[in-house]
Amino acid sequence: PAKVNSRRQRWDVRPSEMANKTCNPIRDIVDGMKLTPNPEKAMIALSIGDPTVFGNLPTDACVLQALKEAVESQRYNGYAPSIGYQKSREAVANYYNSPLAPLEAKDVVLTSGCSQAIELCISVLSNPGDNILIPRPGFSLYKTIAVSIGVHVKLYNLLPERSWEVDLEHLESLVDEKTTCLVLTNPSNPCGSVFNKEHLEGILKLASKHCLPILADEIYGDMVFPGCTYNSLATLSSDVPILSCGGLAKRWLVPGWRMGWILIHDRNNVFGTEIRQGLVKLTQLILGACTLVQGALESILQNTPQHFYDSTTSFLKANAEICFNELSTVPGLTPIMPSGAMYIMVGIDIDHFPGIDNDVDFTERLVTEQSVFCLPTTAFDFPNYFRIVVTVPAEMMVEACGRIREFCLQHYQPHRVDSSELDQ
Amino acid sequence: PAKVNSRRQRWDVRPSEMANKTCNPIRDIVDGMKLTPNPEKAMIALSIGDPTVFGNLPTDACVLQALKEAVESQRYNGYAPSIGYQKSREAVANYYNSPLAPLEAKDVVLTSGCSQAIELCISVLSNPGDNILIPRPGFSLYKTIAVSIGVHVKLYNLLPERSWEVDLEHLESLVDEKTTCLVLTNPSNPCGSVFNKEHLEGILKLASKHCLPILADEIYGDMVFPGCTYNSLATLSSDVPILSCGGLAKRWLVPGWRMGWILIHDRNNVFGTEIRQGLVKLTQLILGACTLVQGALESILQNTPQHFYDSTTSFLKANAEICFNELSTVPGLTPIMPSGAMYIMVGIDIDHFPGIDNDVDFTERLVTEQSVFCLPTTAFDFPNYFRIVVTVPAEMMVEACGRIREFCLQHYQPHRVDSSELDQ
Ligand SMILES: Cc1ncc(COP(=O)(O)O)c(C=O)c1O
Ligand SMILES: Cc1ncc(COP(=O)(O)O)c(C=O)c1O
Repeated sequence: PAKVNSRRQRWDVRPSEMANKTCNPIRDIVDGMKLTPNPEKAMIALSIGDPTVFGNLPTDACVLQALKEAVESQRYNGYAPSIGYQKSREAVANYYNSPLAPLEAKDVVLTSGCSQAIELCISVLSNPGDNILIPRPGFSLYKTIAVSIGVHVKLYNLLPERSWEVDLEHLESLVDEKTTCLVLTNPSNPCGSVFNKEHLEGILKLASKHCLPILADEIYGDMVFPGCTYNSLATLSSDVPILSCGGLAKRWLVPGWRMGWILIHDRNNVFGTEIRQGLVKLTQLILGACTLVQGALESILQNTPQHFYDSTTSFLKANAEICFNELSTVPGLTPIMPSGAMYIMVGIDIDHFPGIDNDVDFTERLVTEQSVFCLPTTAFDFPNYFRIVVTVPAEMMVEACGRIREFCLQHYQPHRVDSSELDQ
Repeated sequence: PAKVNSRRQRWDVRPSEMANKTCNPIRDIVDGMKLTPNPEKAMIALSIGDPTVFGNLPTDACVLQALKEAVESQRYNGYAPSIGYQKSREAVANYYNSPLAPLEAKDVVLTSGCSQAIELCISVLSNPGDNILIPRPGFSLYKTIAVSIGVHVKLYNLLPERSWEVDLEHLESLVDEKTTCLVLTNPSNPCGSVFNKEHLEGILKLASKHCLPILADEIYGDMVFPGCTYNSLATLSSDVPILSCGGLAKRWLVPGWRMGWILIHDRNNVFGTEIRQGLVKLTQLILGACTLVQGALESILQNTPQHFYDSTTSFLKANAEICFNELSTVPGLTPIMPSGAMYIMVGIDIDHFPGIDNDVDFTERLVTEQSVFCLPTTAFDFPNYFRIVVTVPAEMMVEACGRIREFCLQHYQPHRVDSSELDQ
């Protein structure tokens, strides 16, 4: 037997398995790329999911005012309960309350960004060895969090030819007894897709059949283009327990403020008090979101004018249309028009680009030659697309599309090239 | 073999083991107490470790001003790197840099409160099954975090008769090959003790001998009473790798703002790049602290006037002295004078209080009879003391001490009572 108190007499400090397992695939892929822009052309980054970087999409004055008042009041410097101030939770509940999906303060947990909301939901539902279902292509954080705590991920397919609807049959084939939840992103990052009511009902039917709780990542909720309708998932079901994750980051354009929330929809009392208590316990590890932002929350939600939201989505739609229209006529590319969020996906007919291996190679060379950087969707477990962020100023969008066109015209081969032809 | 895709056709959603294991002993104990104040006396809570609740200890005007400017600048609404803005990390590095313990921006990780700093440090160093050494009595969060991720805790004794110095022999006896770090709280919650230089050197010698990294929780660093000297641990060692955790919560009196940090002291390069990388990866799970507070950090650290810090510690010392002097003459109580932080520990000669079982019972009855609530130190794994928070207004401190005296005078029995006597 091992000697008690035995200990090696030299320094040997290694990171934990959890730290080693915690991977951000976007970072891993981007850090592995050789991103040397063409010195003749100014760099245009269409890769950054931060709507604030170009200064063209400031938050509303009301939002800033609310924060300033929270600071001045000096009432929000102390500790809040780890799930958030009652009043702030009430404000969120009132904002999202609807006859079809009633909410009270007790159904709201405030978190440090939507990221922590997602982390808490996955953590409260899943043990190591369990699995969760996540979309492919999909936002990478779900996998990062799951793998970090030893939870497996199973990727269900989204269908580009059906505007990124879920392949329900494939989804259903993945469910097993160790599946703890279905993660749904609507509107979607990276696709910009918005599911219609019928499709959401189809997903709910499946969740109901297999008794599968849903983590609905609705951080882009209501961020849909003029003419498109958004349905929050919880308004469409009374039996499936739903944890809806959201926050201020996207719609209010203040991602750095780290204000997120979990809305607990559980009209059939499937979660009971246990899951709620579990969430409360987990929040006690780091004590939630900044109190100043919590203090401003009621005023932010009540006072931000509708035209602020509308002008954001109109801008995003116009930009997405510029991009879609431009790239639709570029040989070798297939953009898919989004209906919401801040992204557009563009397919690459990689077989028509001889010498270019895949999306990572494509986007790398696009930087080298044209100084335009788009995220290769291998980062979202879905190769041979790239994702464009449509929050950039319109002129930049136009310029970038022109350069992408130039790049494709230079490399595109109308006839599919296979290696045997190249040998001749 | 189990049927593939088998799944029970009924709802059965349970919280994860991690959620179940995540316990806040303070909550568990306090929630289990019958806290019904005496209706004739206004309640005085001496239990809350939040210096802002009574309004007598506002933060400095500079701190508020810095935050307002950060909001107005509109430069801090977007995402920061998950470990924090370079400039803010630089500001923290500059503030804590010293010839004996040099620091650069690369050595600083900003976090969502000191709580997350502690969570990241324990998580990066420890695998399930490993153990960490934590003080008894000690701040409960270490255990909460460790147990939550399957890491064992071993409690080393602090010695009340030696002003809560570490029992070094006991500490050494606990070290084994699975020990990943020694957690040191200096100044201490709940003790208010501040270790002198020689004692810290003794601890470092032991850590060095056993090649044990140290997590130094220095959230109360520099919060020592006039006349007392504080040494940050890293200034006393060049070989032991130290993760010093701190934040704005206590010294700047804004705990709700959730701004914490890890200072990586590793002059012998024991952690190497791996531990640093591990910390970076773990921050990517929830993306760190609120950018507004990050944006204000440089100005807060540079501009807060010395007299603000001094007047806080003078106030705390004066209040601690009131409390110590009052309770020193109360039969059955043994207060231990603190040198820093915001707490004073008071021993209960429980054998002299017939019919009162322990610290929990004592403090519960103190509420029932005198409407004064102090935290029973069973919450800190150390029975038969209670902890008083000395941030309350002085009049309240005096009034509370008077009531505690009255309570003790009513219940104290000069002769130790054992059950056989009671039987007579
Ligand atoms: C789908 C999705 N969910 C969650 C998040 C994280 O949001 P937050 O910044 O509030 O943590 C993002 C951010 O890009 C996202 O795209
Ligand atoms: C010793 C100690 N460490 C850490 C913390 C947590 O600090 P924060 O509020 O910044 O998370 C506290 C809070 O009471 C504490 O007493």
